Amino acid sequence: MSLLFTDTHQHRFASDGRVLVGLDIGGTKTEALVVDGQMRALSQMREMTNTSDPESLVASTRHLIYQALTQAGATPEQVAGIGIGIPGQVNRETGVVSMAVNLNLTAYPLGEAITAEFGVHSYVENDVRIAALGVYRWLLQQQPIQHMVYLSIGTGISAGMILDGRLYRGAHGMAGEIGHIIVEPDGEMCSCGAYGCLETIAAGPAIARHYARAAGMDSPPTAEFVFQAYQDRDPIAQNVVQRVSQALSQAIQWLIMTYDVEKVVLGGGVVNAGPPFWEPLLLALSQLQAQSELTHFMLSPDKLQALPSDFNAGVWGAVMLAQQNDWRQTEL
Amino acid sequence: MSLLFTDTHQHRFASDGRVLVGLDIGGTKTEALVVDGQMRALSQMREMTNTSDPESLVASTRHLIYQALTQAGATPEQVAGIGIGIPGQVNRETGVVSMAVNLNLTAYPLGEAITAEFGVHSYVENDVRIAALGVYRWLLQQQPIQHMVYLSIGTGISAGMILDGRLYRGAHGMAGEIGHIIVEPDGEMCSCGAYGCLETIAAGPAIARHYARAAGMDSPPTAEFVFQAYQDRDPIAQNVVQRVSQALSQAIQWLIMTYDVEKVVLGGGVVNAGPPFWEPLLLALSQLQAQSELTHFMLSPDKLQALPSDFNAGVWGAVMLAQQNDWRQTEL
Repeated sequence: MSLLFTDTHQHRFASDGRVLVGLDIGGTKTEALVVDGQMRALSQMREMTNTSDPESLVASTRHLIYQALTQAGATPEQVAGIGIGIPGQVNRETGVVSMAVNLNLTAYPLGEAITAEFGVHSYVENDVRIAALGVYRWLLQQQPIQHMVYLSIGTGISAGMILDGRLYRGAHGMAGEIGHIIVEPDGEMCSCGAYGCLETIAAGPAIARHYARAAGMDSPPTAEFVFQAYQDRDPIAQNVVQRVSQALSQAIQWLIMTYDVEKVVLGGGVVNAGPPFWEPLLLALSQLQAQSELTHFMLSPDKLQALPSDFNAGVWGAVMLAQQNDWRQTEL
Repeated sequence: MSLLFTDTHQHRFASDGRVLVGLDIGGTKTEALVVDGQMRALSQMREMTNTSDPESLVASTRHLIYQALTQAGATPEQVAGIGIGIPGQVNRETGVVSMAVNLNLTAYPLGEAITAEFGVHSYVENDVRIAALGVYRWLLQQQPIQHMVYLSIGTGISAGMILDGRLYRGAHGMAGEIGHIIVEPDGEMCSCGAYGCLETIAAGPAIARHYARAAGMDSPPTAEFVFQAYQDRDPIAQNVVQRVSQALSQAIQWLIMTYDVEKVVLGGGVVNAGPPFWEPLLLALSQLQAQSELTHFMLSPDKLQALPSDFNAGVWGAVMLAQQNDWRQTEL
């Protein structure tokens, strides 16, 4: 377990009143954040996720919350609400995680298990949806905006949207599943079973796979390797990355034309490759932008922004979710 | 001028209280609807749109409103609000129509001109956005839903969205401009100047143009002609229509995956071609649906619905817009 943040001078805020807890449960690591009523960070901690079975996951998650509360100088009784982000499909009303393959959870009442322990409401949400809330908070500290897409590109591709200043979930909490929009009807089969989904071109594993195939490698490298090779002017990497840029520039154009957002924020493992990811993408977008008055207006480069790779939007979104629900229910 | 609807038994409602007026100003025709406080239709009329210059457009629009009020048995003093749909980009706060090429309007304060005549607020909105409100009202009379896309396919292609039960406009009132999402980066030039927009494949004029080109015709037929030829098993029409179905099935898949809506309602001139439009489209969608568990869930055929061709969603959306704003401002 590693301690990411503690400001001992702020312990008095915690001891004065109620605190909110945010959790970002990932396939590898789980991060916890404790904030006071003014959304000031009191502690932030991280540990490996225990995915052996649901009970172990809940037990280690509880343990992490207790540790983070201790570091924040707060007692469990001070907790006013808990927000949880998780990679899977979630029923937000019941807190039941209907499918989270990476966490070994199927139809598991995660919200209930956490609520039972701490005696307060917990709010479970899909990880990319909840990260969009955290990204929105980060953006609002820079400028007032109302419409935003957070596009996460890593092992999978998914988007979270803030529309008219609110998290948009859709009818089944599935809004933004753009990794599975079909971009090449005759393309290769996706892990979801369909053909030619965006993820078969631009997700991290696809980038590595395409490179390995073209280079005649036996096992795929990492996406980072491919972007590094691109920067080193490896012609195979040039082809693979250009295809990624083309597909992503189209997807970003679709997102902007359909949602008419002020910002598209990009984050995730693939985006963190940095310049070799951004340079060809911005070039592809500038070519689209130059085509017409409409694209010139809609695709202005200042609409795109990179999420700092060291900012965990998930835990901030989780405390925001707890705060929003807490306002509604208890007028904190 | 033609009288579409009058129920003389309802005149007493108009004389009892306030009425709302809805206008759907199209490039060819303008339609007006007068409803009472319970949203019951009192009169509905239509006339040719006078596009010679802005002043003539406003004068003939005023005249139509007066005629519709007379038919409804209402006086101008009873008008509580006026909603107006117009094909173009609109600033909803100011009522200024920034661009409506078909109506010969550029940066014209249409809202102000109508407000000045009747002494009540008027609310101007893009025609497809406002039609989505009317479609939503129509759907709600059948079932309770919260998330819906209205996809209009005619001379152009555009979508209007109801998300979480409210009209979604985006940051610049441009949300849903999916006629200009780029689907074939190496495709033909669109009227907007970009290459390979959805409209270059699936809008009415494109369908006619592709047929004429393949058939070696000197001038394009109508889209209706092409769909009729498709039904008559003309092989050229088969190719053209199948390409339309392929592009539209992908666009519908994108809309459902990004917005996670309960319904996609299709309307407009191309859709009104009926079975030869629907059959190949539903086939293409069922092929996508069969690919995976996810597409099976998201693309269930009951999500699609045809808007009856004789239902003018625009005027109903216009009175709804007036009603929504009227509630807010005067607590009618």
